[in-house]
Amino acid sequence: MSARPTVSREEFDALFEAVRTWGRWDRADRGAWNRVTGDHVRRAVGVVRSGVVVPMALPWNTRSGPDNRKPALHHMTDLGDVEGPEPTTHKDFIAADYHGKGVTHLDALSHIAYAGLLYDGRPARENVDAAGARFGAVAALGPLVTRGVLLDLPAVLGVPWLEPGHPVRAGDVRAAEEALGVTIGEGDAVLLRSGHVRRRAELGAWDPATASAGFHVDAVPLLAERGVALLGGDGDSDVRPSPVEGVHSPVHALAVAAMGVPLLDNLDLEALAGATAEAGRYEFLLVVAPLNVPGGTGSPVNPVAVL
Amino acid sequence: MSARPTVSREEFDALFEAVRTWGRWDRADRGAWNRVTGDHVRRAVGVVRSGVVVPMALPWNTRSGPDNRKPALHHMTDLGDVEGPEPTTHKDFIAADYHGKGVTHLDALSHIAYAGLLYDGRPARENVDAAGARFGAVAALGPLVTRGVLLDLPAVLGVPWLEPGHPVRAGDVRAAEEALGVTIGEGDAVLLRSGHVRRRAELGAWDPATASAGFHVDAVPLLAERGVALLGGDGDSDVRPSPVEGVHSPVHALAVAAMGVPLLDNLDLEALAGATAEAGRYEFLLVVAPLNVPGGTGSPVNPVAVL
Amino acid sequence: MSARPTVSREEFDALFEAVRTWGRWDRADRGAWNRVTGDHVRRAVGVVRSGVVVPMALPWNTRSGPDNRKPALHHMTDLGDVEGPEPTTHKDFIAADYHGKGVTHLDALSHIAYAGLLYDGRPARENVDAAGARFGAVAALGPLVTRGVLLDLPAVLGVPWLEPGHPVRAGDVRAAEEALGVTIGEGDAVLLRSGHVRRRAELGAWDPATASAGFHVDAVPLLAERGVALLGGDGDSDVRPSPVEGVHSPVHALAVAAMGVPLLDNLDLEALAGATAEAGRYEFLLVVAPLNVPGGTGSPVNPVAVL
Amino acid sequence: MSARPTVSREEFDALFEAVRTWGRWDRADRGAWNRVTGDHVRRAVGVVRSGVVVPMALPWNTRSGPDNRKPALHHMTDLGDVEGPEPTTHKDFIAADYHGKGVTHLDALSHIAYAGLLYDGRPARENVDAAGARFGAVAALGPLVTRGVLLDLPAVLGVPWLEPGHPVRAGDVRAAEEALGVTIGEGDAVLLRSGHVRRRAELGAWDPATASAGFHVDAVPLLAERGVALLGGDGDSDVRPSPVEGVHSPVHALAVAAMGVPLLDNLDLEALAGATAEAGRYEFLLVVAPLNVPGGTGSPVNPVAVL
Repeated sequence: MSARPTVSREEFDALFEAVRTWGRWDRADRGAWNRVTGDHVRRAVGVVRSGVVVPMALPWNTRSGPDNRKPALHHMTDLGDVEGPEPTTHKDFIAADYHGKGVTHLDALSHIAYAGLLYDGRPARENVDAAGARFGAVAALGPLVTRGVLLDLPAVLGVPWLEPGHPVRAGDVRAAEEALGVTIGEGDAVLLRSGHVRRRAELGAWDPATASAGFHVDAVPLLAERGVALLGGDGDSDVRPSPVEGVHSPVHALAVAAMGVPLLDNLDLEALAGATAEAGRYEFLLVVAPLNVPGGTGSPVNPVAVL
Repeated sequence: MSARPTVSREEFDALFEAVRTWGRWDRADRGAWNRVTGDHVRRAVGVVRSGVVVPMALPWNTRSGPDNRKPALHHMTDLGDVEGPEPTTHKDFIAADYHGKGVTHLDALSHIAYAGLLYDGRPARENVDAAGARFGAVAALGPLVTRGVLLDLPAVLGVPWLEPGHPVRAGDVRAAEEALGVTIGEGDAVLLRSGHVRRRAELGAWDPATASAGFHVDAVPLLAERGVALLGGDGDSDVRPSPVEGVHSPVHALAVAAMGVPLLDNLDLEALAGATAEAGRYEFLLVVAPLNVPGGTGSPVNPVAVL
Repeated sequence: MSARPTVSREEFDALFEAVRTWGRWDRADRGAWNRVTGDHVRRAVGVVRSGVVVPMALPWNTRSGPDNRKPALHHMTDLGDVEGPEPTTHKDFIAADYHGKGVTHLDALSHIAYAGLLYDGRPARENVDAAGARFGAVAALGPLVTRGVLLDLPAVLGVPWLEPGHPVRAGDVRAAEEALGVTIGEGDAVLLRSGHVRRRAELGAWDPATASAGFHVDAVPLLAERGVALLGGDGDSDVRPSPVEGVHSPVHALAVAAMGVPLLDNLDLEALAGATAEAGRYEFLLVVAPLNVPGGTGSPVNPVAVL
Repeated sequence: MSARPTVSREEFDALFEAVRTWGRWDRADRGAWNRVTGDHVRRAVGVVRSGVVVPMALPWNTRSGPDNRKPALHHMTDLGDVEGPEPTTHKDFIAADYHGKGVTHLDALSHIAYAGLLYDGRPARENVDAAGARFGAVAALGPLVTRGVLLDLPAVLGVPWLEPGHPVRAGDVRAAEEALGVTIGEGDAVLLRSGHVRRRAELGAWDPATASAGFHVDAVPLLAERGVALLGGDGDSDVRPSPVEGVHSPVHALAVAAMGVPLLDNLDLEALAGATAEAGRYEFLLVVAPLNVPGGTGSPVNPVAVL
């Protein structure tokens, strides 16, 4: 693990200022997804070669554990004995307080406020209450279809996984682009693989709020410059512990609140890592289709890569 | 509305026998999705022209009503006052007993049993219990990427919507293909628009369990012959009241239990109807990405069309 | 139904001022339950004669309807097939957004704020957030054991029920006391029977938010003077439509926010009416045992009368 | 900790046979609560002296932990910003899959089946399905008002708590009766204090499914002979690990399935221990008022002692 520099609050605030895109879009609550036009969609579709389809959602996890403090619910509500008689039906109920470490989900723009402000400078207090988010709701985002790029750091480094706490810095992003033969461009979705899902399978669960690999804030200006539309990974994008004083999730603050870039948290990228390695190509068509929740701050999702 | 013939139970059972594909697939619990190979995916990707992206999920509906007996739940669980201090976070909880008429969802193969048998002849009692479905779970399906075809019946007929109770028969499907310039082929997803979402918006809600437009069972052999992978619509595919004696959801029984064809229920096809009409093309890339629920009988989804 | 006078906002505010007991109790978030001492408990126990036990909770209602907009949930989570093998266990999950008209429940002091203030003048914004209520939580109330008095208005008036919209005024309370041979005293729980549960059983459900029998605000000073600890009924204590301009639930505001008197809503008083009539006595030992929810604004309950 | 003898399955089955009361009651699904007549209620009321009221429910626990695998839910659904304007209202949603170790609850007779049979010999498969329990539902029990007896074992033994795994045997029950000056009689509710709540507060949580103090099966014939109506404790009545081969919860099987005695699990008896010690009397009026859930296998409760 490289040494972790301490970033002061002043440095962070300057960074926030440098990358923010407030006031840029007419449809502000779509944030960086405004970058993705029909042209981007067509180009993304054009990267498909084999037609291999790879999902990225972790199994819906109903067991509590160090990385699943608020287990999702799954109840069978009809076992052929409620409705009937022909055909008989089986039904179930699902539920989740999905933000956290246990459920693969999308963070919409209303999920994060920094210094009281949501993306585009909208005051959080005026825009989010018990009835939901009036700005930055997941329903305003809709689905995203764009090119995805996998930054498979363990593949680049020749390790099974990054250790929890490992920061991914600007130089690491550039090195990965070169090693994997892909260049992040405007409107892309960048998915960071730490290998934490493999590590959990082999070594058992730990509390990723305490230690997880993820982007260091110094990688964010590069991603901002490239005009990414979406960030995601098998963690929650933030390296933990946070390198920024007094800010527990600085990449969340920069991406969501400053740049209007939604986040994909808790992906399972193991199958995608295998598929991209086999194809020798780290780009793919990505489709993310959040549930249409008015006022929602995000959604459980099952993002799909098509290679 | 055409007259509704009565189908006897014997006729229905013969139909069931005629269209069933039990024993055909190694991965039986993927059912008709086994038809969709990499070739189909590439061909589906190849129909994209404009890059216009159209979602199909109804808004997550938390209000009870005649078409929403089990309202979905949406609770804000953090309003910037629970986690903190920087960034502050907004979080929410969603929940749904999603089978029914209120939530856009996918029916997996475990959802329906006819005469006690799930698809592939698997006994329902041995395969589904309070712990979930061991055969035909939504997690076994995974995502579907294929060509979608919209059968926009109101467009074909020059009406704003089909009246509730209107049956769509084999001849109507063929007429729609001809009128819309599209031919249903193997691995396709066929989406039936009745215009009921528009009708509800203009006239108010009613109970679609009592009356809704949908496929008559006599359309099913044609769809079976074409090798469809998925059926869906702005109803639940079944015309109601049922034309089959003693079978409340005959198209469900035929599609899911006999043919292994999952269903998409309660789509909002209004935007897609506009986009297809504007493009003059009724085919598109379709992506359906159910949540990865082990043992789940289906999933809320937000299917995406790319034109 | 007697004519409904209109009460101006000024008159209401004067009433609020007149009955409020802010600053009176050390343990302010127990409100009027501070009135109930060991002496009162012993006296309440002393009214028991036959030992007949009468519960008052409506059945947990999972069906939506005009009086059940947010149906409660009840899911079986183990049918002997999850845990095992011996003994096998059956388990279930219950859930409710219980304020409303469908669930028998207690309103704690944090449930209601008038002009931004909770009971004892505590600002609502500072005391209630997404983490729950810091003042006036149901957990601070604990259980109530006191004398209950049933004001069985239909019995007094010789009618099967009061019609929805019927206001119960100060004179009606006094007349009921006389007719039923009971005098409301300090620390008592007063339960108002309108007979709406019987009416619903015979005539079907309606929306009680639109019309229900209940106390007119002019009955509140009398109840305040008597020092009641708890009000409840088979409605939600408020006559609806509200007789007070701009205040949708004036008895809630007066009882909870001004007087610190919790409310019992949506009781089933039919069995109690039968038992009290048979005994010829309208007083009983009452036990209300809310769930111990820290931060909760109330609780589903099953109040118990012992005659 | 005393040595734990192993009980064979044959011995257990003989015990089951010996204590079972099948066929005894007309209202079989009230089980042993049939023992509690108006006379018992009056006698129970008669033990009240001081009027001190003591609740026994643990706080509603929304945090996962080794003793709370399925955390309860508590969501604020209105923070004065949904309904309004005057008065403003605060509302919340509660939910629990309450069987387990985290929630104070009552086990109804439908909760447990031994060798496929519920209490009274009713086949579990025919009586419990996804729609709920048709026999032995909590709604059939209703509330219980009876005399409660606290077996405060740590007080008897002069220790702060029983260690997890400590079995309470017939001799221990008799010794406790003598030491505490109370004799268990027909219709009584017997509450066993192990002091585990205090231990948890002082030493932290552990998994009580692995080790907890509770009744050894050899104490059950004594309790059966005395005609108890209810058993409960600050564990779940069963000593764990189980002393019976192949039966994970033998006291549950004996009490619920053989004797029709509901159980109170996960009580907080610390305050009651203090109050009984202070009074020097280990009997009290007990009121248990389960929610009125048709088909429910039990209920979260807040049992109340009145001393």
